[in-house]
Amino acid sequence: MSNIFPVKNLLADDTLVGQSVTVQGWLRSKRDSKAGISFLAVNDGSHFDSLQCVAANALANYEDVILKLSTGCAVAVTGELVASQGGGQAVEIQATAVDLVGDVDDPESYPIAKKRHTFEYLRSQAHLRTRTNTFGAVTRVRHVLANAIHDFFHSDDFYWVNTPIITASDCEGAGELFRVSTLDLNNLPMNEKGQVDTTADFFGGDAYLTVSGQLAVESYCLSMSKVYTFGPTFRAENSNTSRHLAEFWMVEPEVAFANLNDNANLAERLLKSVTQRVLNECETDLGFFQQRIDNTVMDRLSNIVDQPFVRVTYSDAIDILLKSGKSFEFPAMGHRYGLGARAVLGRRSLQSARCCDRLPSRHQGLLHAA
Amino acid sequence: MSNIFPVKNLLADDTLVGQSVTVQGWLRSKRDSKAGISFLAVNDGSHFDSLQCVAANALANYEDVILKLSTGCAVAVTGELVASQGGGQAVEIQATAVDLVGDVDDPESYPIAKKRHTFEYLRSQAHLRTRTNTFGAVTRVRHVLANAIHDFFHSDDFYWVNTPIITASDCEGAGELFRVSTLDLNNLPMNEKGQVDTTADFFGGDAYLTVSGQLAVESYCLSMSKVYTFGPTFRAENSNTSRHLAEFWMVEPEVAFANLNDNANLAERLLKSVTQRVLNECETDLGFFQQRIDNTVMDRLSNIVDQPFVRVTYSDAIDILLKSGKSFEFPAMGHRYGLGARAVLGRRSLQSARCCDRLPSRHQGLLHAA
Repeated sequence: MSNIFPVKNLLADDTLVGQSVTVQGWLRSKRDSKAGISFLAVNDGSHFDSLQCVAANALANYEDVILKLSTGCAVAVTGELVASQGGGQAVEIQATAVDLVGDVDDPESYPIAKKRHTFEYLRSQAHLRTRTNTFGAVTRVRHVLANAIHDFFHSDDFYWVNTPIITASDCEGAGELFRVSTLDLNNLPMNEKGQVDTTADFFGGDAYLTVSGQLAVESYCLSMSKVYTFGPTFRAENSNTSRHLAEFWMVEPEVAFANLNDNANLAERLLKSVTQRVLNECETDLGFFQQRIDNTVMDRLSNIVDQPFVRVTYSDAIDILLKSGKSFEFPAMGHRYGLGARAVLGRRSLQSARCCDRLPSRHQGLLHAA
Repeated sequence: MSNIFPVKNLLADDTLVGQSVTVQGWLRSKRDSKAGISFLAVNDGSHFDSLQCVAANALANYEDVILKLSTGCAVAVTGELVASQGGGQAVEIQATAVDLVGDVDDPESYPIAKKRHTFEYLRSQAHLRTRTNTFGAVTRVRHVLANAIHDFFHSDDFYWVNTPIITASDCEGAGELFRVSTLDLNNLPMNEKGQVDTTADFFGGDAYLTVSGQLAVESYCLSMSKVYTFGPTFRAENSNTSRHLAEFWMVEPEVAFANLNDNANLAERLLKSVTQRVLNECETDLGFFQQRIDNTVMDRLSNIVDQPFVRVTYSDAIDILLKSGKSFEFPAMGHRYGLGARAVLGRRSLQSARCCDRLPSRHQGLLHAA
């Protein structure tokens, strides 16, 4: 076996042409020509694109193995990386060996076909859905986003703080709570008043999943100056809409000696920075989203990077919203988590906030679970 | 106000000497000389050391403000950065302005004194304990460790995957489970059999906190090739020892097309890489740990970086353990999570594993909550 390379390296590095290389991945598709040549599309998740590997019937296991390979098989292909004969990609492998590493039990019933599947169907095939174009791209983009968030804060001298997930605090009344318990529901301990005795529970009292790390991270802020949380957060609102998530990852920065303008600058720098990283590093994945999922993606992302964020006063923001002709749950000025807080952050953050039921606290970015 | 700098920059950058600078932080201590000069130790969390700021009674607010400052006050100090007159640090600020940003309500009862506090006492002052040397250092080291873990995997082409925290899976029976529920304990819905009807719960069934992301991340591995989790994990064992944590952050890498030797190489590279980062970037914090907490810290960390990890066969490992003269919970060979799995990872990983009740799955690093 030659040196093993991720597919993304083979697609990106011209200097490897002419060398013997090995790729390991899963068969996305295979086409067998009548001339005794098979074309294998091998995907290893490192890139949106699969790598074409060309296997001829001169290979010893052509009849017994290669011809029988089906979508989903795990394979290792070794051969010379050459400039591609056909269109499409720049390079392909002329295979000198194709090894079957892991078989598919029943090719006829393999659930991920080379066609468009609905998200509803893929939800029922969660163990295999990252083998689709969409979920592979989501995984790569999400990784780059998360890495860019950490890089931004690290290079800006913030400390990442992991605040408690299990807590007794309902942070600023931000949301409904999930209870965490080891009590046996069918054999609950009772107190003298005939109520459940939660002092007998694991932590000696009521315990819940956190709705925000803000309270805990603020104490770190008041000694470390610049801190952020980036971890899972939980809301038990009984709301089955696409805007509500029971579990999601949230970013919460806290900065000492900072005013509202500093906060707004931070939010703008953060969003521009992570968006630029995704534009730079996920070109092929974004191209797929643009083409197949939402053709406004590239414009919206470029807009975040290129345009300054509009800032308006509270009063002007209320005016804009009142003039929008939309109806709001809390139309009056001054509601704690309603129009006011959102509006202060400016128009772009309003757009970001749309994907969440509400803006959970004073100044925080949101990264939702996929 | 001049340009604001973190204390760590002022301590590290000679070129700033002679410039007018501002620091913002919290007063660790203050000494007032009879000659009308006050020495303020200002700490902003960016470095273990505080910066000395020298304020003379020529300042307009010397009597009314500076003389009254007490430990814990938030201050902003502006002045020229000069080579330090006394010993200790290389630089200090000759203050031209000292502003009180945030006062301490009652200086007499401020709970963090300039003396050694027990961890038990600091547990009762959790909101202020990061203002101590120990917890400040822990926060910085933990941040560098976490950042180094993400950097290592990112540069090694791994994808960070956030696996579900709320789950119905008991992953490989790895631990006792916390239940997650929104049912009213004092008003539980019952089914026809007289049992609690958990189908009426938030997720329509039993739900628990994850004991491991491994099961979920393995499905990502079998499409993305190299993935890892780094997130909170929960174990409800009723064990009140220093080796058990109900909530901790865990790293779980999964690599496709890899064998046991690849896994061991990965673990060794990861541990050497992150340890080297801490040694490089946390010199002062580690020096404090060495001096005040555990004088074997530097030797043990250097050992991880400098020495190759010993690898022994399963049989040899069992022999070593049997000859150790210690008694074990599972003395027989072959117990699933007992001696075997730990021993295969070699002597150093045995040391790492000591801080956890058990090694939760086949190949994973551990990062505990502080």
